[in-house]
Amino acid sequence: MAAAPVWSVDPRTGKQREQVGAEATVQDVDRAVGAAHSARAALADRTVRAAFLRGAADLLDAAKDDLVAVADAETALGTARLTGELARTCYQLRAFADIVDEGAFLGVVIDHPDDTATPPVPDLRRYKIPLGVVAVYAASNFPFAFSVPGGDTASALAAGCPVVVKAHPDHPATSERVAAVLRAAAGRHGIAADVVGLVHGFDAGVELVRHPLVAAAGFTGSVRGGRALFDAAAARPVPIPFHGELGSLNPVVVTEAAAAERGEEIGSGLAGSMTLGVGQFCVKPGLVLAPVGAGGDRLLKALTEAVGATGAGVLLDHRMRDHFVAGVAERAQLPDVSAPVEPGAGDEHTVTAGFLTVPAARLAAGGAHDLLLEECFGPVTVVARYTDDAEITAVLSRLPGNLTATVHLSAAEAAGTDRTDGADRTDGANGADGANGIGGAAGHSRGTRLLAELTPLAGRVLVDGWPTGVAVAPAQQHGGPYPATTSTSTSVGGTAIERWLRPVVYQNTPEALLPPELHDANPLGLPRRYDGRLEH
Amino acid sequence: MAAAPVWSVDPRTGKQREQVGAEATVQDVDRAVGAAHSARAALADRTVRAAFLRGAADLLDAAKDDLVAVADAETALGTARLTGELARTCYQLRAFADIVDEGAFLGVVIDHPDDTATPPVPDLRRYKIPLGVVAVYAASNFPFAFSVPGGDTASALAAGCPVVVKAHPDHPATSERVAAVLRAAAGRHGIAADVVGLVHGFDAGVELVRHPLVAAAGFTGSVRGGRALFDAAAARPVPIPFHGELGSLNPVVVTEAAAAERGEEIGSGLAGSMTLGVGQFCVKPGLVLAPVGAGGDRLLKALTEAVGATGAGVLLDHRMRDHFVAGVAERAQLPDVSAPVEPGAGDEHTVTAGFLTVPAARLAAGGAHDLLLEECFGPVTVVARYTDDAEITAVLSRLPGNLTATVHLSAAEAAGTDRTDGADRTDGANGADGANGIGGAAGHSRGTRLLAELTPLAGRVLVDGWPTGVAVAPAQQHGGPYPATTSTSTSVGGTAIERWLRPVVYQNTPEALLPPELHDANPLGLPRRYDGRLEH
Repeated sequence: MAAAPVWSVDPRTGKQREQVGAEATVQDVDRAVGAAHSARAALADRTVRAAFLRGAADLLDAAKDDLVAVADAETALGTARLTGELARTCYQLRAFADIVDEGAFLGVVIDHPDDTATPPVPDLRRYKIPLGVVAVYAASNFPFAFSVPGGDTASALAAGCPVVVKAHPDHPATSERVAAVLRAAAGRHGIAADVVGLVHGFDAGVELVRHPLVAAAGFTGSVRGGRALFDAAAARPVPIPFHGELGSLNPVVVTEAAAAERGEEIGSGLAGSMTLGVGQFCVKPGLVLAPVGAGGDRLLKALTEAVGATGAGVLLDHRMRDHFVAGVAERAQLPDVSAPVEPGAGDEHTVTAGFLTVPAARLAAGGAHDLLLEECFGPVTVVARYTDDAEITAVLSRLPGNLTATVHLSAAEAAGTDRTDGADRTDGANGADGANGIGGAAGHSRGTRLLAELTPLAGRVLVDGWPTGVAVAPAQQHGGPYPATTSTSTSVGGTAIERWLRPVVYQNTPEALLPPELHDANPLGLPRRYDGRLEH
Repeated sequence: MAAAPVWSVDPRTGKQREQVGAEATVQDVDRAVGAAHSARAALADRTVRAAFLRGAADLLDAAKDDLVAVADAETALGTARLTGELARTCYQLRAFADIVDEGAFLGVVIDHPDDTATPPVPDLRRYKIPLGVVAVYAASNFPFAFSVPGGDTASALAAGCPVVVKAHPDHPATSERVAAVLRAAAGRHGIAADVVGLVHGFDAGVELVRHPLVAAAGFTGSVRGGRALFDAAAARPVPIPFHGELGSLNPVVVTEAAAAERGEEIGSGLAGSMTLGVGQFCVKPGLVLAPVGAGGDRLLKALTEAVGATGAGVLLDHRMRDHFVAGVAERAQLPDVSAPVEPGAGDEHTVTAGFLTVPAARLAAGGAHDLLLEECFGPVTVVARYTDDAEITAVLSRLPGNLTATVHLSAAEAAGTDRTDGADRTDGANGADGANGIGGAAGHSRGTRLLAELTPLAGRVLVDGWPTGVAVAPAQQHGGPYPATTSTSTSVGGTAIERWLRPVVYQNTPEALLPPELHDANPLGLPRRYDGRLEH
């Protein structure tokens, strides 16, 4: 039987653009993984792989016009957005090259013999080594930054791990072109091209996570698909780490004082964030707790105007469009749910942005309204109107894990000058206080208290901002409690490299046999812990 | 129905010593976890929890005589060994107190806004927070160091996580007494005693890993039990990290030159390591690759004498004794397997140490001899005689993951002055070279090459030593590829704390609302990464 063809489709028309090879067979997957595994030694030298990462960024930059055009034709994300995304992707590759050069990620720890310890300590020298071939499952919504040349690939290569990417079916042509660029970059630096492999097809993705030579996986996508692959990774004879980003509601709390102070600004800011990229961001704010009363009303008025003025948009594919249209319709018909701007179908290929409102008490009560606590991919958000802090707590306590959680505070609340001394603290807030480092003893401001409630829910907590826009930075944490992420890791930022490494310690091993990273004299100038003390 | 009673049993006689409460019901588990969860804020203050850890060590020290006596009565491990183990346990608690004080484990990273980045970077401040209640599954073979007050508990409390320990049935009385000491220590430092919970019973252990408020688990035990709990942790609606240490063969390679140089010394050293603690260590050397020929023969002669002179010993319980007796018998009857000193039953309650020999080619061929590559708990090891390096590689390539891997080298090999320039390198060694940082381009010594082969197999690699004896030190790595460990973590050493934390980043959050750990001025003097630079 011939392998199924892979088509590049234009979401603006629903028409096939071109055939892009075929779905990978079991043999194809085995070949790609085997080749990647055989090529792994080519990534052993840190200097070479840093140069490779920078070279890949340079080649991607050089191919920018072509890559953006193809990606736009397949995703309808637009030239401006895609140009920015490719720039971010190249920045990320270079950032990981810097991380490779610095070498802190190696986690070098050297202990010399110490007979006073219980039990005595021998000579121990530890650092981290690459896990092996990493399977990368590309996302639909970032054809560059969370796809073939994205954060998973960049961090895995930086760690010294070859990758085999399972292409997302929404941009197979872009995936092929980008993979070719990465493979060419490898070749220019004397690295076997097979350190970057690419396979197409759903079944190939399942085969990939089960392959004995695959040592870890990175995934960005839906809860359903991600959980199935997570389960497959855990069920292997030899389970492997599965770092999946599955879904996130990204709650936002607007305090009464903040709404009173700048309701319009918050409303229009929310409109911009929830409609950005036609609402196709994993950090789109999907639930907003806004107060009843005048401030909240002004917020809603501004939101209504801004969202109502947003033009129809094209989603990444027609299946998503169908899901969005059905999903918002199902939500809109729930009791006590209104749609000041109705989200739904535009023309045959587009959707229109909108938002729903619901009393927070409905969400706190659970039942059918739990549907509103599930992510709905596309340009829609839910504004839950609350009457008091207890309702905020009640709703937050029902939320699953999130990538982000946001609070909008008044100036006084942000400054912490509104000390309430716990007078109106709820039980929920009391319980969480301090357990996460935020908060502590007496004298809480509302801002402190709300941060203590939001921290257990997310990996990134924002004040007076919007979660869309994920900076590539050392401190970044793009990952949160399940289902936001299936592990405690981040997929963006410097520490994303930690996912693809494991420590090994050499005991009583002569320096002549050890790599320079573990020599006393520190010839490579690595940051390290040396006889207990941090050095850099 | 009344809950099943829990009995403390004397393995020297097989008789019940005393009843120690009852197995925990579903309600008991729920109560223990709920209480631990409610108490978590008590661990938020780092100064308080460091004092608690030191106070616990002091109280355990003070109760030493009683605790060692009870533990000996339940485990037959002997007063000397248990006194040392308790000292190690107290040392470990104090070491984690120092780690808490230093605060490097918080992983503080602060980035200030940077508009030149792509995309621009906002104010980001990241550190790690405790995951929540940790389930600890105690091991049989270390009633202190890998049990109620052991590394999992110490590292979890150090991270700020309450624990609920599932006691090992081989030492329930010791578990109860130690838990009482830890709870008393908590009380003395104003911490709710419920930060340390204890439950008995197999079913309780299963309930524990499924409890919604349990956020992570640590386990030390068998492959069968550990895998079942790992699977349960992964199958939860919200999966949790499961850090399990399941089993390890701990291979040892003795080069021909090493055997020629000091065969007797290696043989008697091996005897000491494999019979230590009646062979009940997870790092017991269970497979030794020794050369055929004169050097190897001398090794075996010394091993035969030393093991033959070893007295009978009592295993931790009679079930283990049965398993050992059956396991060694099954192994001994395999084709081409000899038993120069036959391991097996001693008197009604004891076992005798012994070892088996087999041609390495038999192990390389697989089939029924794969049984010899499975851990056999107790005082037995398998010596595989090899004829050339290719046989070493062939056997190593069949091994599952291990906690440790050891090589004994000659003086010249250890000094790296035996350069073979790859002349007799095998394909297997070539493939692995460099991929793990060990080795590299041309000019390998045999030692370098063997380290490159052993590194993928283990978390700790030793030269000219024995794996028994696991130091508590910053560089320690007690964990290796599956089934040695179900994650990439360590259960011993400073970095064991990392298992119980997750990062959270605060974006654009005023310092007034942030904990002092994330203030620019660094009032607590924490090691951190600040605008990209490491500071300490």
